[in-house]
Parts: sequence; structure tokens; C-alpha cells
Amino acid sequence: MARPTPLSGFPEWLPAQRIVEQHVLDVLREVFELHGFASVETRAVEPLDQLLRKGETDKEVYVLRRLQADPEDQAVPAGGDLLGSTLGLHFDLTVPLARYVLENAGHLEFPFRRYQLQKAWRGERPQEGRYREFTQADIDVIGKDTLSFHHEVEIAQVIAEAFARLPLPPVRLQVNSRKLIEGYYLGAGVAPEQVGDVMRVVDKIDKVSADTVVAMLTDDVGLSTEQARACVALTQVTADGDELAGKVKALGVQHPLLDEGVDALARVLMGAARLRSDRFSVVADLRIARGLDYYTGTVYETRMQGFEHVGSICSGGRYDALASDGRMTYPGVGISLGVTRAVGPLLSRGLLTASRSTPTCVLVALPDEESRASLQQIATALRSRGVATEVSPTAAKYGKQIRYAERRGIPYVWFPQDEGTHQVRDIRSGEQVDADPRAWVPPEADLRPSVSGSADL
Amino acid sequence: MARPTPLSGFPEWLPAQRIVEQHVLDVLREVFELHGFASVETRAVEPLDQLLRKGETDKEVYVLRRLQADPEDQAVPAGGDLLGSTLGLHFDLTVPLARYVLENAGHLEFPFRRYQLQKAWRGERPQEGRYREFTQADIDVIGKDTLSFHHEVEIAQVIAEAFARLPLPPVRLQVNSRKLIEGYYLGAGVAPEQVGDVMRVVDKIDKVSADTVVAMLTDDVGLSTEQARACVALTQVTADGDELAGKVKALGVQHPLLDEGVDALARVLMGAARLRSDRFSVVADLRIARGLDYYTGTVYETRMQGFEHVGSICSGGRYDALASDGRMTYPGVGISLGVTRAVGPLLSRGLLTASRSTPTCVLVALPDEESRASLQQIATALRSRGVATEVSPTAAKYGKQIRYAERRGIPYVWFPQDEGTHQVRDIRSGEQVDADPRAWVPPEADLRPSVSGSADL
Repeated sequence: MARPTPLSGFPEWLPAQRIVEQHVLDVLREVFELHGFASVETRAVEPLDQLLRKGETDKEVYVLRRLQADPEDQAVPAGGDLLGSTLGLHFDLTVPLARYVLENAGHLEFPFRRYQLQKAWRGERPQEGRYREFTQADIDVIGKDTLSFHHEVEIAQVIAEAFARLPLPPVRLQVNSRKLIEGYYLGAGVAPEQVGDVMRVVDKIDKVSADTVVAMLTDDVGLSTEQARACVALTQVTADGDELAGKVKALGVQHPLLDEGVDALARVLMGAARLRSDRFSVVADLRIARGLDYYTGTVYETRMQGFEHVGSICSGGRYDALASDGRMTYPGVGISLGVTRAVGPLLSRGLLTASRSTPTCVLVALPDEESRASLQQIATALRSRGVATEVSPTAAKYGKQIRYAERRGIPYVWFPQDEGTHQVRDIRSGEQVDADPRAWVPPEADLRPSVSGSADL
Repeated sequence: MARPTPLSGFPEWLPAQRIVEQHVLDVLREVFELHGFASVETRAVEPLDQLLRKGETDKEVYVLRRLQADPEDQAVPAGGDLLGSTLGLHFDLTVPLARYVLENAGHLEFPFRRYQLQKAWRGERPQEGRYREFTQADIDVIGKDTLSFHHEVEIAQVIAEAFARLPLPPVRLQVNSRKLIEGYYLGAGVAPEQVGDVMRVVDKIDKVSADTVVAMLTDDVGLSTEQARACVALTQVTADGDELAGKVKALGVQHPLLDEGVDALARVLMGAARLRSDRFSVVADLRIARGLDYYTGTVYETRMQGFEHVGSICSGGRYDALASDGRMTYPGVGISLGVTRAVGPLLSRGLLTASRSTPTCVLVALPDEESRASLQQIATALRSRGVATEVSPTAAKYGKQIRYAERRGIPYVWFPQDEGTHQVRDIRSGEQVDADPRAWVPPEADLRPSVSGSADL
């Protein structure tokens, strides 16, 4: 077989890169579990009619077919009832969660706190930060009929804590509020039935000029020029928790729902601000519009410094009806971190590295093949204290065995001495000391591979 | 939306069941990493021509199609060059590993030790222990041009250590050797070119009678009756390391390759026997034939007591050419544990359970909603020492908050007292003691959910 080439959009990592990715996933899992989120995994597939419920994502779905399926399964789905029996790969973890909650509602405790670290697939054109196969890390809190606002604060706190511990470039969590926007629009004289249309037009402000948005709001939606200018003015506001109320008040629009939204957003900002650092900031950004027309409360987006072009790496919000079975409605709030979107570009550019390409901390040198069985007892003793250990694959000259360790970044080589004594060498410094296999442990920092960012990061 | 129903063959677990599955995966990862195996993940898809290389598995492959693909991508693969551009979901982790090794050979260090915990998909008819989506745990050691025999011993040792730590019913690792079988056949007078045919016929011995196998060996392969009977006699041998040589010798067949095979198999048995217990045994079983016609050395299978009907839960072996790019050949030895095959039936039958359905160890009770912010400091303090903590979602009566914890199996409820003092109650025993949020830790056994098997297991 000829040497295969990579598939565009399906990233794979070398072992040292995978150690970085695993570290990120381990940090996320630890933070989520410390906050009482339980792991859920859903199957990779959903019925096509579920995947297409929102209509807009249909072009991205991978449809499955069994190669040797029965003839009736072979048909290309042409709409209608076939959609329910045709399977596609999920393109996010929210559609599967909604289905899982409905399917298992009788066996879950609400509010239901779950995290989910899984792959998803979209048939999009690949580019940096945009992949056809990618790993997502989602947390959601799902209520039954009701869900308290404080969970909107909590989600920001949990993800802030995760960012504070992840080896990423500085990230900026941007929050907005459906209530604030809607209250402001109403206060500016927009009719309730126009609110959704205004949001969809204002969402274009990153792509067209402010004047164009004003023209669209007056010509297409029917606002007055003054109303349209007020709507655009709001998109210019960014503020932290202390500034928000003042900056919004300065725009001169008043409405009870606006006050409520300002208060809610300020509480989200305050909740996450405790973790502010030079690597993590949180700000109200009243321009972000992600799904404001279907989210009902707080909305989150996240930008990574130097990688703004990949878009938001972590997004979500509050929705009053994640799922409903007709009798019962399940409101939720959640956020989804694009692990591959955030980490993939850093790995590809070599900006995040691991100290070694293997978990192995100690290589036991082998003087001759006959000693293998007895040296395995040394390895077993070290492993019993959590020290990842390999016995050298060959009894080559010690120099060659040391190079085996060096090429993988294994920090220690263990040398059995005469009469059952032992020495261990730190091959980075060359320092070699007496050691007892029943007691020796490496410094904590060497026990596992460490992950570090380059100076550019 | 109506309440959805499960998809046959795509198992999903409730949070408490998922905790069991995660525990199994954590144990596997820890054992594999302690032995110096590095994690690799491969993409879920491979070109269809790669997946169909071995021919026999074609009926099981799920083929992918983008719903809105370009017309030329829409065509159903009809063989030929389309196979290379059509993608299917991988049905195991070995085909992807072979491709990954060839693709990245220049960036890997050999012998390359990798583990892989990932899902795979097969469009088979579902039954207990056989799923359409399932998780596999693979370890392999891959050499470049050569790979020492001792890795065949090592693979058995590593998987034995994993089984010794997994909460499964008693398992029996069964090993056989291509060399032993081939040497025995040659010693019994089978011609070298008949060896493969004999193996394939003898492999049917579980499905047809010994007499039928003898008839097929004489009529179809052309052996003498005496030769055929000798081949069948070998399938009756099971032995531990001490007995193997004697039991094989008693059959009266001699050949240098047989001696070599007996010696090799005895070393594999001895290597794994250290971990023998009432829950793990290892035995030479000269009947097992899994892939003996393409494996070249040791072959492994594993049966789980009480679940023999699901087949082997952990299989693998030595192959002299996992992959080849024409210039270089990569021999390997590995084993693949069917996590879903082994754990799925136990979860479905309720034979493995977790002590709680959430990672949360402590619920901080909330006297009133105004206290939420200050009580979060208690939660933060506990989390800083690794204690998973939630603040109660509501300031309901304490009885109701305690029931929130009870329903999830959360063992401790934290009660703030007057003047900044605190008490923590073990709600299983009712014992309530003074506690300091900056110092208190639960007993180690309560820190994380524990997993236990029922008495039936």
C-alpha cells in the first residue's frame, strides 16, 4: 500500500500533540465534575428528521447507509417518512441532549447537570479552526418546567474556571442578554412583533456598514430612522459589570424589561469576574447576536486572542424550551467549547507542546535479555506507585538505550547495579543517584508529561 | 415532539451507568499509560477501499454521504476508483492504526506503543453483546522491520493487569500459537501448502462434530485419516504453563517448529500467570483459531464467565505485517478489548452499579437565595481540595434539599451555621459534625462515586 495522505478536515494528532489535547480534555472533565456535572455520552447518530428540525443545517449533515443494507434501506432520503428511519451523524451535542432528555426524562433528576465530551461531524469546507470532525465539550443545566436564573451566572463561572486553567492564549468571554436587547428595542419604540426581525438585521452589522443596517431597518422592517439609529447604537456598547448600567443609561432608552436585562447581565459579569486575569476576561458585548432570536436569556460567545478569525470558540445561552414532549417543557442553559476549534490551530502551528511523546517516566535499562524477567519486577514496583515505566525493548548498548529514552522525552533511565543495588539517571541533567525501586518517586512535575505554550502564545 | 424511543444497537447509558463505563475506561487508560502506551485517536472515517481490503467485512460498513454534496459525490460507490473517495465509518481500530502508522511513520518512534479508546461502528444485527456502535480499547506494539517476541508476552501481562483491576465477572484469557499449530501439523505429516486449509477446516470444530471435521480434512484437504485425527486431537488440549509441554508431547507428534511454539506459548502463559486470581485465569487453549491463518505468532481470546454467549470480549495476536508501504514492513502485536461488549450486558442487567448518579460529593444547603454568593465561597474552598461540590439549586426547606441529595446519592450535605461556623452531615448515617470549609475532606472512599458488582457477578 502506498503511503496514505491526510483527509482534509479530519485532523489527527501525533502522540505528543494528543497528550496536549488529552490534557485539555482532562482539565475540562475535572472542572465540570468538581461543579457536579455528570458525564453523558450519546450515540453518534440521530434520525435525520431530528437533525433537520431547524432547517438551516441540512447541508452539513453526513448521512449514513449500510453498504449491504436491504434494498429499501438503500434509497436516498427524499423527504417524508424516510427521514425518520435514515440516520445521520450529529453535528452538535445539543440536538442529541434534547432527545436524550425527552427519552430518559423519567430516569433523570432535575435540574439535570450534564457534561459531554464527544466528537461531532459537519460536511463543511475545511479551513483553520473549522473541521469536518471535531471534539466538543458541552455543559448544560436542564430544568423541568422551570429553571432559575442563577444557573445562567453559574455556567459563566464554570467555563471561566475552565479557561483559567487551560493552556490557551488569552480568551475573552462576551455576554449579551436577550432580555436587555428586547427591552431596549421596546423602549426605543420597536413593536413587539418586530423584535425578531430587528435582531436578525442587526446581526449583519459585522458584514455590512452601520448605514446599511439603518437602511434595512427602516426600509425592510419599517422602523423610523431614529429607532434604527438607536438599535445600531446599542451594538457599540461593551462594558464590565460596573460600567454596564451607566453605559446603557447614557443611550437614553428606558423600559422595565431593559432594566431587568441590565441587572441580569451585570450579575453574570460579576459572577465570572472573580476569575479575571491577563489570560481571561469577561465583558458585556451588546453586539453579539448569536441565536438571540431563539435564545431567551443570557447568550455567551468567546474569542481567543490572535485567533479571532476562527470565530467564537465557546458559545451558548439560555433557552426556555430545549425540549418539549407536549406535556412537559425542559428549559436549559448551556455552553459548548469547541475543543478542536480552539486547540487544533495551536497544535498545527506548534504553539502548544508536551514535554514528551509518551506517558513513560522511567526506562529500565536492560544489561542482557536474560535479565528481562527480573527487571520487570523493578518496573512493577515503580508502577505500583503510579510511575509509568517501560523496560527497554532491547539489551543494546546503554548509549543506544539512553537514546531510546531521549527521542521520546522520557526523563529517567534506571540502571540495575551489582548486588541488587540501583541507580537512576535524570538524562536531562546527567545526574545519577542511588535509588530503591520500592521507594523512589520522581519529582511531581516529571510524573506525567507537562504541557506548555510557546512564547508566542 | 413525541417521546423518542431508543435505536436498537446504539446503546446509551443513564448517568449512573455512564459512571461505571467511565470507571472502566479510566482503569484501562491508567494501566496502559503505566506501561508506557501513548494515546492515539484516529478519525472515525476511512476511505472505503481501505475498509474493504480484507473483503469479508464489507456488509458491516456504514458508508457516509453529505446530504447536500456535489452531484459527483452523490453517486453510490459502484467499485473501482470511487471506493477511494467514498468514506465509511471504521469498524475496528486496527485498520485505522495500520493507516496511521504508514501515514506518520517518519514522525513516530519504533517500537511504537499506542493505546486507543474509541468508538467503532458495524451495521450488524444487534443482540446482547453485539452492537452497531461500541467502544473498543486497543493496545499494540508496532515495530519497524522487526519486533521481538517478548512483546507477545508483554501484551498478555498488560491486559491481565487490566482485567485484575476491572469490576468484571471472572475472565479467562485463552492463548494459542500459530507456530505451535503449524509445527504440530507439519510434524503430523501435513504438507506446508495444506496448513492454511487445515486451520480453516479445524476452525469449524465448534459448529460441527469432530467426525465431520475429520471427513472434511480427508475428503476436501486430502489428509490421511490418521493425520486428520491427529489435527482434531490437538483441539482438545487446554493447559497451563507447567502442563503444556507434557500434554502436547503425549500426542506423539514431533517437529522443531512445534517445540519452538510450545516454548513461546509457555512463556506467554508464565508471564500472565503472576496475576492469576479467582477473577482472572490464563490458559493455553489449542482449539481457539481466531485468525490463525493471518496471525503469525501468539493469538489471544477472552471469555467472561456467565457471558460466554457474547463471544470473546478481548482478542488479538501477533502479525508480521500490520502494514507495509512496499519499502518497509511494520510487524505488530496487539489486543482489543470490547468495552461495550463486556460492560454493556452487565449494565443492562443491573449487575454493575455506581454509588451515585453524579460526581457531586457535597451539596451545600441554602438557607435563603440571598446567601447564594457567600455560600459559593464554601463550594470553591471544597473544590480547591478536589471535593466535587454543588450549591443547592433552591432555598427550599432543608428536608427538600436533603432529598435532592438523596435522590442522586450525594453522600454529604453542608449546613452553614450562625456566626460563620459550619456543620456537615453524612446523610446515609445521619451523623452531623462541625467542619471547616478550608480543611474538611471526606473519607477517600466517598470522594468519587464507587463502582460495585452485584452478588451475582
